[in-house]
Order: sequence, then structure tokens, then C-alpha cells
Amino acid sequence: MTEVYVLGHNHPDTDAIGSAMSLSYLLNEIYNFKAIPVISQKPDIETRYVLDYFKIPTPAVVRTVANKQIILVDHNEIAQSLADFKNSEVLAIIDHHKLEIETNKPIYLLSEPVGATATIIYFKYKELGISIPAKIAGLMLSAIISDTLLLKGPTTTEKDCVAYQDLADISGVADVDRYGTEMLKAGAVINNNTPEDFINGDVKEYFIQGKRIRIAQVYVTDMAPVLEKITDIKNEMNKHISKNYCDLFMFVMTDILKINSMIVVLGDERAIVEQAFSTKSAHDMCYQPGVVSRKKQIIPLLIKAFLAK
Amino acid sequence: MTEVYVLGHNHPDTDAIGSAMSLSYLLNEIYNFKAIPVISQKPDIETRYVLDYFKIPTPAVVRTVANKQIILVDHNEIAQSLADFKNSEVLAIIDHHKLEIETNKPIYLLSEPVGATATIIYFKYKELGISIPAKIAGLMLSAIISDTLLLKGPTTTEKDCVAYQDLADISGVADVDRYGTEMLKAGAVINNNTPEDFINGDVKEYFIQGKRIRIAQVYVTDMAPVLEKITDIKNEMNKHISKNYCDLFMFVMTDILKINSMIVVLGDERAIVEQAFSTKSAHDMCYQPGVVSRKKQIIPLLIKAFLAK
Ligand SMILES: [Mn+2]
Ligand SMILES: [Mn+2]
Repeated sequence: MTEVYVLGHNHPDTDAIGSAMSLSYLLNEIYNFKAIPVISQKPDIETRYVLDYFKIPTPAVVRTVANKQIILVDHNEIAQSLADFKNSEVLAIIDHHKLEIETNKPIYLLSEPVGATATIIYFKYKELGISIPAKIAGLMLSAIISDTLLLKGPTTTEKDCVAYQDLADISGVADVDRYGTEMLKAGAVINNNTPEDFINGDVKEYFIQGKRIRIAQVYVTDMAPVLEKITDIKNEMNKHISKNYCDLFMFVMTDILKINSMIVVLGDERAIVEQAFSTKSAHDMCYQPGVVSRKKQIIPLLIKAFLAK
Repeated sequence: MTEVYVLGHNHPDTDAIGSAMSLSYLLNEIYNFKAIPVISQKPDIETRYVLDYFKIPTPAVVRTVANKQIILVDHNEIAQSLADFKNSEVLAIIDHHKLEIETNKPIYLLSEPVGATATIIYFKYKELGISIPAKIAGLMLSAIISDTLLLKGPTTTEKDCVAYQDLADISGVADVDRYGTEMLKAGAVINNNTPEDFINGDVKEYFIQGKRIRIAQVYVTDMAPVLEKITDIKNEMNKHISKNYCDLFMFVMTDILKINSMIVVLGDERAIVEQAFSTKSAHDMCYQPGVVSRKKQIIPLLIKAFLAK
């Protein structure tokens, strides 16, 4: 039987893995080929927690997709996939991110601006009338919880809420709110991270009006252990800036349960942040209730402030 | 009420216009904004025939979509849309072509490798349980007939056949095969075209292995009137080649009823065509039964032949 890999993005999160597994199950119910969920790195702590909770085997980790037929979930950009992506045949894509894609033939692509790829797959199950096994429902539920921060994040849509409710019922999880909180907490464990880990771990770089902007982010359920190390973290950030590596460096500590962020702002362009958020950042620190997303909440305000300069 | 433009590609064909109109109707049935079908140029002769047959008013021709919210149908590439596309907000895309797209935020995009965009829209009507008015069904039916050459073209899929049957019933067209043939014939009228018109009208340029390849195509229901002018056409092609504008020039006369093509092959690289089609092109002419599509049937063979060189 033909094998088709269903692949989530690099550094797979719970939505990437949950989508790969739930879409594979769906495809195997209706098609004649064998869909195999694969990932390019091992699951992180949060997804580990989910797979253990529902007693689901970990999908295979693959290093290459060359000469394979593949289906991409939860990503569409080459930069977020395996390097030899270009040597495979992409059959289909299901995703909820911005698009950056070029194909040499028509393919199936479904992209929707919803909170999680798992939500799109849930509605495909409904549309096709395929029933969802409890474990798969638990996995999809966890994917939605992860990407929408228990439906409290800014990307949450009505469709995510509908999928969440129905999947909660099917999964048989008794107290979903408690399960979700425990799951997010499990993923937010930071323990022994060094200041270098914080500012080099989950970091993204942007260029706005010729300025180089670096934003590192860490998700926590308690800010205290990070704040304790804040002087060392600032020193690391300043080292980076003094080597002329960036004009603005933001370190965003996000409390994923309270849905707020404490942001450290350093660099020559730091005044722009006060303007972007209409705030005064005393001692290079700035507290932002409701802010959890770089892409959706921080970058748009920075762009606006730079353009107004 | 918010207005949203539903836009087909430049040089709109029956699928582009039929998709813009049928999707607008669907959106106005379920959403609170006002969807308006628009095109960037006047309908061609074939679409004119369709709109007159079903007594459907012509959609508005617009020169700009700047600062508008738009939905693209039957195309996704900037090059095929209005030039100020970049200054509009693209809300959604429904298409069946290869993809070349970059967005700065997640959007709704549904792409399927089927014969016509109208087929995808037909299945959206079904999925949402919206009933299709007879005129809209006639328009969608015509779009499928046009893009798939009455289900005989190489891009035809099972989904197109299902949509075609159902839309034929709803539209109330008595003899669909006859209607489709008349419609294609109406679009294939060539009358007073000059040799220059033939080789500069519907022409596409490709670069393969550093070679510049030009392929002009004309759709006919009778090759005789074109063959009559073939010496003049060859002279025009040779003028173009002798100015070093291309390495291979193909002129493809396609009989859309018989589903075959007569191809004139000129230029330094003309031997590649014999290899690509495993044929001998006597007197620079080559007859190809079943071949109607540059994209699907000619270009892939040329690429293969050039790579094997
Ligand atoms: Mn996701
Ligand atoms: Mn089309």
C-alpha cells in the first residue's frame, strides 16, 4: 500500500502532533493509502504529558522526507519543515498560519484563520461523518487547549469553542478545565533554565523600518522563578545589544494561566515600546495584561509605532 | 453594509466569472456583508454567450481594488490579478491552480486539484445546504464545461462529473451536451484574426534549462481557417525567432471538440519536440491526439526531454 507521511512543523507542539495523528486516522478511514503521522523532532514536555495521559504511542521521528509523498499540517512554509521538503511530493496542506507557499501543480490546501489546526480537522470529521475515537478526541482537544491557551488566547474563534466542547464530551475527560490547566503547567516547567536559555530559547527576529528587533518569550505559570534571575537576564540581553546585534531587544515573560505578560525592554530603540503600548516602562519593565502573542499583539503595535515615527 | 469584492483573474474566462458570481450569491445567503462579483476586464465571447443564454447581468468591471476587502476566485497569484491587489485586504481565496502566495496573516484558502473553481463552489453549496437558483446553476455548469472542455479535458476529475450532472439538472438546460458544444463553439470563433493575432494572442513564455520557449495556442472547432493561413503564421514565427527572442516557438491549434492539437514547431531547439512526443514532425508540423493543455500535457514532456538531453 502507498505510504503517505503526515508531517507537523519543526519543533512540533501539541497542535502539530495532534493534527498529524488525527488527520492520519481520518485519512486511513476513507482512503486506500496508508497515512503515517511523523515529526521531525521528539515531542516537548507538554505533548509528552498529553500522549502519556491518553496512553497514545509517540509518532515516528523522521530525519528526511525525500522522495516521499507528504501532507503538511500546522505549517506551510518551507522554513518550518524538514530541509529536504523540496525533494518530496506535497499532496495536501491543512494549516491556520499565514501563507508562504509555491507549488508547481495544483494541490489540496485548506487554510482557516482559527485557533488551532485541530479545529479544522475536527470540522472535516463532522463534514465527512467519521466518528472520532475517544483518544483521538483527547489529542485534538489538547491541541486546541495548547494553541488557544484554554480558549483564552487572542486567536480563539467561535469554531474553536464548538470543537473544544464536542471533543471534551467525546474524550471522556471529566474536568476539562483542570486537565487543560495541568497540561499547560506541565509544558511551562522551566526549572533549571539559565539566563542564556531564556533569551536564546524561543526567540524571533524581525526587521521593521530598517531596525533589527529581537523578541524572546518564555511561557510560565508563575513568574517568580524567572524574575528572580532578571538582573542576569538583562546583563545577557545587554551583551547581545552591545555587540550591535539588534536595535531593540524584548524579553516577554507570559503567564499562560493569567493571560498577561511582563516585558523587559532594552536597546537604542526602547522608547518605541512606550509609544506602541501607550505606557511608561519604569526600570525597563512593562506589564501588559491580556498580551500573550508576539505575532498577533506585539508586532502589529510595533509596526504602527515605527511607521508613525 | 460592508462591501466585499469577489474577483476573478485578469482576462476573465467563464470559470473566473461564474465562480465570482456563484460565490457572491452563496456568501450573501449566509453572511452579513455584501459580496459583489467584479472582474478586471469585459467578458470574452464565450462568457458573453453564457450570460446572454441565462439572461444574467454582466458583473461590474473595476480598475482598482485598493483599500477594498476582496476574495479571490480562480487565481491566487499576484501576477494574474489587478495591479493594486497588494493594497487590498485579501479575506479568502478559492482556486484550483498551482499556488504562489504570501500573506501577512492567516486567511481562508481552499484549493483543490479539480477541473474548475465552480466545482469547488458547488460542493460548498452542498456542504452548507444552500439551494442553487437555476441561473446560477447554469453559470456554474458553463464554467465547468469551459474549463474541462465538456469533461473531456485532462484536468477533469470525478468531482467535476458529479457537479456537472447535478448542475445540469438544476439549470433546466434540456440538452446539456448540445448547449456545451454551442457554448464552446461560440468562444472559438476566430474569423478575422491575422497571423500576428494568432501568435501574440494567447501566448505563454517558459524558461527550461536556460532555453526560452514560447507557446502560442488557439482554440478552434475547425482547423481549416487557421491552416489556410499557416504559411503567413510560420513567417511571423520565424521573424520572432530571427530577432533572437526565443529558442523554441510552438503554435498549438487545439480542436476543443475533437480534443486534439496540430502543433507548428520552429526554432533552434525544435528537435526536442520530436523527442518529447516521440514523434517525427514532418514539415515542422506535428499532430497530437488527446493533447489540449500546455500546462498539463506539453510543458511536462518538454521539461523531461530537456533534462534527458
Ligand atoms: Mn497550530
Ligand atoms: Mn478555472
